[in-house]
Amino acid sequence: MIEITLPDGAIKKVAEGTTPMEVAKGISEGLARNVISAKLNDTVVEITTPITKDGTLTLYTWTNDEGKKAFWHSTSHVVAQAIEELYPGVKLTIGPAIENGFYYDVDFGEQSISEKDFPAIEKKAIEIARGKHDYKMRSVSKAEALSYYKEQGNEYKVELIENLEDGTITFCDHSSFTDLCRGGHIPNTGIIKAIKILSVAGAYWRGDENNKQLTRVYGISFPKQKELTEYLELLEEAKKRDHRKLGKELELFTFSKKVGQGLPLWLPKGAALRERLEDFLKKAQKKAGYEMVVTPHIGQKELYVTSGHYAKYGEDSFQPIHTPKEDEEFLLKPMNCPHHCEIYNSSPFSYKDLPKRYAEFGTVYRYEQSGELHGLTRVRGFTQDDAHIFCTPDQLNDEFKKVIDLSLYVLGSLGFENFTAQVSVRDLNKPEKYIGEPDNWEKAEQAIINAADEKGLNYVIETGEAAFYGPKLDFMVKDALGRNWQLGTIQVDYNLPERFELSYKGSDNELHRPVMIHRAPFGSLERFVALLLEHTGGNFPLWLIPVQAIILPVSEKHEKYAEKVLNSLENHEIRALIDSRNETVGKKIREAELKKIPFMLIVGEQEEMSETISVRRHGGEDFGSISINEFSDLVSTEINSTLKSF
Amino acid sequence: MIEITLPDGAIKKVAEGTTPMEVAKGISEGLARNVISAKLNDTVVEITTPITKDGTLTLYTWTNDEGKKAFWHSTSHVVAQAIEELYPGVKLTIGPAIENGFYYDVDFGEQSISEKDFPAIEKKAIEIARGKHDYKMRSVSKAEALSYYKEQGNEYKVELIENLEDGTITFCDHSSFTDLCRGGHIPNTGIIKAIKILSVAGAYWRGDENNKQLTRVYGISFPKQKELTEYLELLEEAKKRDHRKLGKELELFTFSKKVGQGLPLWLPKGAALRERLEDFLKKAQKKAGYEMVVTPHIGQKELYVTSGHYAKYGEDSFQPIHTPKEDEEFLLKPMNCPHHCEIYNSSPFSYKDLPKRYAEFGTVYRYEQSGELHGLTRVRGFTQDDAHIFCTPDQLNDEFKKVIDLSLYVLGSLGFENFTAQVSVRDLNKPEKYIGEPDNWEKAEQAIINAADEKGLNYVIETGEAAFYGPKLDFMVKDALGRNWQLGTIQVDYNLPERFELSYKGSDNELHRPVMIHRAPFGSLERFVALLLEHTGGNFPLWLIPVQAIILPVSEKHEKYAEKVLNSLENHEIRALIDSRNETVGKKIREAELKKIPFMLIVGEQEEMSETISVRRHGGEDFGSISINEFSDLVSTEINSTLKSF
Repeated sequence: MIEITLPDGAIKKVAEGTTPMEVAKGISEGLARNVISAKLNDTVVEITTPITKDGTLTLYTWTNDEGKKAFWHSTSHVVAQAIEELYPGVKLTIGPAIENGFYYDVDFGEQSISEKDFPAIEKKAIEIARGKHDYKMRSVSKAEALSYYKEQGNEYKVELIENLEDGTITFCDHSSFTDLCRGGHIPNTGIIKAIKILSVAGAYWRGDENNKQLTRVYGISFPKQKELTEYLELLEEAKKRDHRKLGKELELFTFSKKVGQGLPLWLPKGAALRERLEDFLKKAQKKAGYEMVVTPHIGQKELYVTSGHYAKYGEDSFQPIHTPKEDEEFLLKPMNCPHHCEIYNSSPFSYKDLPKRYAEFGTVYRYEQSGELHGLTRVRGFTQDDAHIFCTPDQLNDEFKKVIDLSLYVLGSLGFENFTAQVSVRDLNKPEKYIGEPDNWEKAEQAIINAADEKGLNYVIETGEAAFYGPKLDFMVKDALGRNWQLGTIQVDYNLPERFELSYKGSDNELHRPVMIHRAPFGSLERFVALLLEHTGGNFPLWLIPVQAIILPVSEKHEKYAEKVLNSLENHEIRALIDSRNETVGKKIREAELKKIPFMLIVGEQEEMSETISVRRHGGEDFGSISINEFSDLVSTEINSTLKSF
Repeated sequence: MIEITLPDGAIKKVAEGTTPMEVAKGISEGLARNVISAKLNDTVVEITTPITKDGTLTLYTWTNDEGKKAFWHSTSHVVAQAIEELYPGVKLTIGPAIENGFYYDVDFGEQSISEKDFPAIEKKAIEIARGKHDYKMRSVSKAEALSYYKEQGNEYKVELIENLEDGTITFCDHSSFTDLCRGGHIPNTGIIKAIKILSVAGAYWRGDENNKQLTRVYGISFPKQKELTEYLELLEEAKKRDHRKLGKELELFTFSKKVGQGLPLWLPKGAALRERLEDFLKKAQKKAGYEMVVTPHIGQKELYVTSGHYAKYGEDSFQPIHTPKEDEEFLLKPMNCPHHCEIYNSSPFSYKDLPKRYAEFGTVYRYEQSGELHGLTRVRGFTQDDAHIFCTPDQLNDEFKKVIDLSLYVLGSLGFENFTAQVSVRDLNKPEKYIGEPDNWEKAEQAIINAADEKGLNYVIETGEAAFYGPKLDFMVKDALGRNWQLGTIQVDYNLPERFELSYKGSDNELHRPVMIHRAPFGSLERFVALLLEHTGGNFPLWLIPVQAIILPVSEKHEKYAEKVLNSLENHEIRALIDSRNETVGKKIREAELKKIPFMLIVGEQEEMSETISVRRHGGEDFGSISINEFSDLVSTEINSTLKSF
C-alpha cells in the first residue's frame, strides 16, 4: 500500500500501481468522467500511469489550465500524424501546448503548406481522433530511440535524443504514430472533438537563426465543437477590437520608426483621452489625501544601486547615460519609487505627519527586445499612475482599505464588473527568501487579508507568491472577450524604506522605519488604454470618450444653427464637434458610426425652427427631436450611471 | 581731415588726431559732460585717444552697458592700487569688468583678506579716486614690459606679456599706478564717487586647477553714492527673493544628491503650482485652437541626425543610451520639435487642415556642467510649455499675431507689466548664413514686423540676430528688481520642415512645405517659477498661489467651526487650510506671514456666533469680520483684476 496526498490535504491509501484515473474513480464518478491529466509531485503524468510510491497527486479536467495543456499537447500528436500522412517525407520536431492551443514545428522539405491546406489537415486529424486511440507511454533506451529516428532520417529528433540523459527517454504511441515525448497526455484521442489549424509561421530550429527555418503550424482543439465555434467568434471579435487597429482608426496614437519602436506618440485625441483618465484619477486621489509630485525621468546610477534595482536589472536595461565632461552616470528611470523615497527623505516627519501619499503620473522606460514589443501593451516607455504611501505599521490596514476603495472606484467607473483579487503571501517554509521582520510580515499579511475581507473582495490567497520585499494584492480583471488582465497591484514594501533609511519620529520620540505601499490602479496609461480599447471595442464610457457628440447639419444653410448648438453644448460641458463637410447626412452618420461617436445630432430645417436637435445614439437608437436641455439630461444620466463620485 | 561715421549714419569731417571727447563736444555739451568711453570701429578706446583715420565711432555714457564696463574696469585699477598700497608685496594679475561690477585676481602671498578688510580697501580706493587722476595709455615694447614686471617679481604679468604679440602691448597709468592693459577706460578717476568691495573667492590662475589659487576680489562702483545705496538695497532684496531660498521656505522643490544635481524634485506644493500654471495655459491654448500631444523623453539618435541637432550639439550633450542586446542608440530628448514633426508626418494634411498646433508640456534634458547649475534657472532637466504650429506661408502673419496675443495674456495674468519686444531678422549682407528661400524670409520677417505693429508692441529690430533657420521675436521682461529676463520666444522655422520633409497638399493639388513656428510663453516651467518667485518674492498672484487662505481657530473649541468654514470655502473654490496646532493665534499669524499665505482667517467665539470670519491680508491689512460670501467676493475681485479670460 502507498499513501496519496490530495490537494485538500486528504490522504488516500491505495495499492501500489494504482493509476490517477482509479484514484479519481475512488473520489467520484463525475470526476472520473472528466479527469484528463494529472500531476504527481512536480511531474505531469498520464492518468493511466501507475503510481508506485507515496506522493502528492493533483487531478486535472478540461477546466484547469493544466488539463487544457495536456489536451492541446495531445492534439499536437494527432495533427503531426495527420501532416505525416498527408505530406510523406516531412520531418517532425517538437509540438508543445501554448497559452491558447499548441503548435508543431515541421520541416516540410521541398513541400510547403498555406491556409488553403488547413481544412484537409483538420479533416485528417479529426478522423484520426475519432479512432479513439489510447496514448501509451513507453520507456526506450537511448540506442533504441536513436536508431528509430536515424532510420527515419530525422536529424532533429536525433539531436534532441543525443542531448537527453540515457534512461529517461520515453516514446508516446497512439494509433500507428510514435513520437519522442516526455508525457502529459489525455488518455484517448476520442475526447478531441474539434480541431482547428489557425496559422503557419516560420520558426528557426531551436530558435537559432543560424539553423534551418521550419514551418510552425499553430492549432487549437476542444472537447466540444461548440466551444471551437465560440472560440473562433471570440478570435474574430478580438481582431476587430485589436487596440493597434482601433488606435489607428480612432487617431489615438502612432509610432514612428525615427523616434523608435515601442515609444508611442500620442495624437491629439489620444492625449485628450489620457488627460481625461489622469484628471479622473487626480480628482479621486485628491479626495483620498494624495499629493502630486513631479520627478525627473533620469536618476544617477547611484540611486538605483541604493534601491537595488541596478544589481537586479542593470544589465538587461537601457544602458547608462554618460556626460561629456564629468564622471557621472545616469539611468533612464525604470520606476518612480526611488525618486519618491528621496522626496520623503528631503524633510523630517513625525508619526503625526503620516501617512504621506505621493502620487505622480511618472513616465518610466524599460528595455524590451524589439520582438517582444506589441502595440501599447508591451512598450519601452510608459506612464504609470504611480503613488507611494509612507505610513506607520499601524496604519497599514486602513491605508490598504483606502487603496482598495480607490481601485474598486476606478474599475467601476470604467465598466469592469468581472474581477477577482489575489493575495500573495510568503511561504512560511522559506523564511530565507524574504527580507523584513517576520512580525511585520505577519502584520502586513493580516492587514491585507483583513482589508480584503472587510471590503468583501472575492479573493484567493497564493502562498509563496509574495515579492521578497512584501506581500501584495492584485486584481484580475476579465475583459469583454473573457481574457484576464492583471490590474491595480497594491504592494507592501519593507525593502526600500530600509535601503533609503527612511524614518519618522514615533510618539516615543525614537526614529522608526515607515512601511511603504506601491500602488497603480491603472497600472500604466498605455496598457490601460489598450485594455479599455479591447474591452469596449472603442466605445469608451461616455464620460471618458474624447468626442461625445457630433453635430451633423443637413446642409450649409444650417451651419449657423449648428454653431449655436455647439456653443450651447459647450456651456453644458458636452464635448462636441460639427461635421460641416459638404456630404450627405447619411454618409456623415456612417462615418460617425465608424468613429464610435456616441451621439449624432442632426440639425435641419425642422430642428432649427423648433430649436431642437434630432438625436441618434451610436448603434442606431433614435431619440427623436429633443431640446438641448433634454439632451444634456440624457448625457448626464448616462454618465452618472457609470461615473459615481468618489 | 578724416571722416567719422556716427551710429545714426551721420558723417563728421574732423582733423586727424581729434579725440572722441572732442567729437562729443561737437555734438552737444551735455554729451561731452557725460561721455566716458567710446568704440572706434570694433575696438574700445579711451575718449582721449586721438583718431587717426576714417572710422565708425560710438560714444558711451554711464547709461550704456559699454559705458558701465569702462567705468568698472577703470575702478578695478584703482582698487588694485589700493590693495597694493595696503598689502605690499601682493602680485596683481587681471581685473576685468563683469555683468555687475568688476573683479581683480590677486596673489596675496602669505597674506589674506576677508570681509572685515573691505572697508579699509574701499576707503583707500575712494581716496585715490578723489585724486582725479587721468587714465593714460602708452605703448611699450615687449622687452620693456617684461623687464618692468620681472623687476617686480610678478610672474603672472610676465606670463601674460610673453603670450602677447610684440608691438601691441600697452600700459595704463594713473596716479603712481601702472598696469598692463588693453584699454577701455574712463578719462579720469574723479568720476568714481562710490566703491564697494562685495566679496572674495578663490580662483585658479587662468582658471586651471593645476595652477596656483589666487584671491578674486569682487567689487562695484558708481558715479553717485545714491546709486550704490540703491544697488546694495536691491542686492539685499534679491538675496531675500532668491528663488532657491524661497523655494525651500515655501516647500516648492528640492534637489537630491542621489537623484543628481540640476534635476529638481517638485514637492507637493510646487507640483500643485506647476499644475496650476499648466492648467492656466492649457485652457488658453485650447481656446486658441491648440491640441495637446504626448511624446516620449527619448528618441533614436537617427531622429536628431535628421533634425541636425546631433551634428550641432551631440558631443556636448548627455551621451547616447545603448540597449543591451540590439544595435540601437537613443538620446534623451533635448527638445520636442523633432517628435512633433514626426506626429505631423504621421498623417497627410491638406491646406484646409492647417494650421495644426501641437502643444506639449514636454520635459527635455540638456547637459550643463555642474559648475553652471543654479537653482531652477540652470538645470539639466526642465519642462517646456512647448508648441509647434505648422501653417502655410500665408497663415504666418495671423498665427504670429495669435501667438503674441497668447504671450501678452500670459505676461499680463502673471503681473509682468514692464516688457519690450525684440525682433531678430537676417543680415541681408550675409545671405550665406541662412537657409530657406529669400522670398519666404522676406515674407516671414514682414509677417513678424506687421504682427508686432498690429499688436502695438514696443519693439526693436536687431539685424543679424535671426537664427540660421528663421527670424524670431523675444519678449524682454523686467522683473521687480529691474533685471531683464528673456521670455516667450516666438521662432519661425524653415529648416525642420525641410529636414523632416513635411508637406501639405495645396489648393493647387501639389505638395508644399509648411512653415513651422516654435513658441513657449513661459519658456520652461522651472525657469518661469524661479522668475515668478524672484519677481513676486513668493507673493504669487492670488489665482496661482497654492494656499489662498489659512483658517486660524483661536482655540480647540472652534475647530468644528473652522471645518465648517473650510467646507464652505471649498464650495467657493477657494484653496484653504486649517492651522489646528495648539499654538497662539499670534504665532500662527507670524508663521502664515512667513509662508506668504495671502489671507488669514481668524475664527473665535465672536466669529462662530455671527457666522463670520475675521480676515487679515498678508502684510497686515485688516478686513474685519465678514461673511464667507463677502470674503469670496473679495477673492474673486482680486483674482479677476489679474486673471482675465482669454
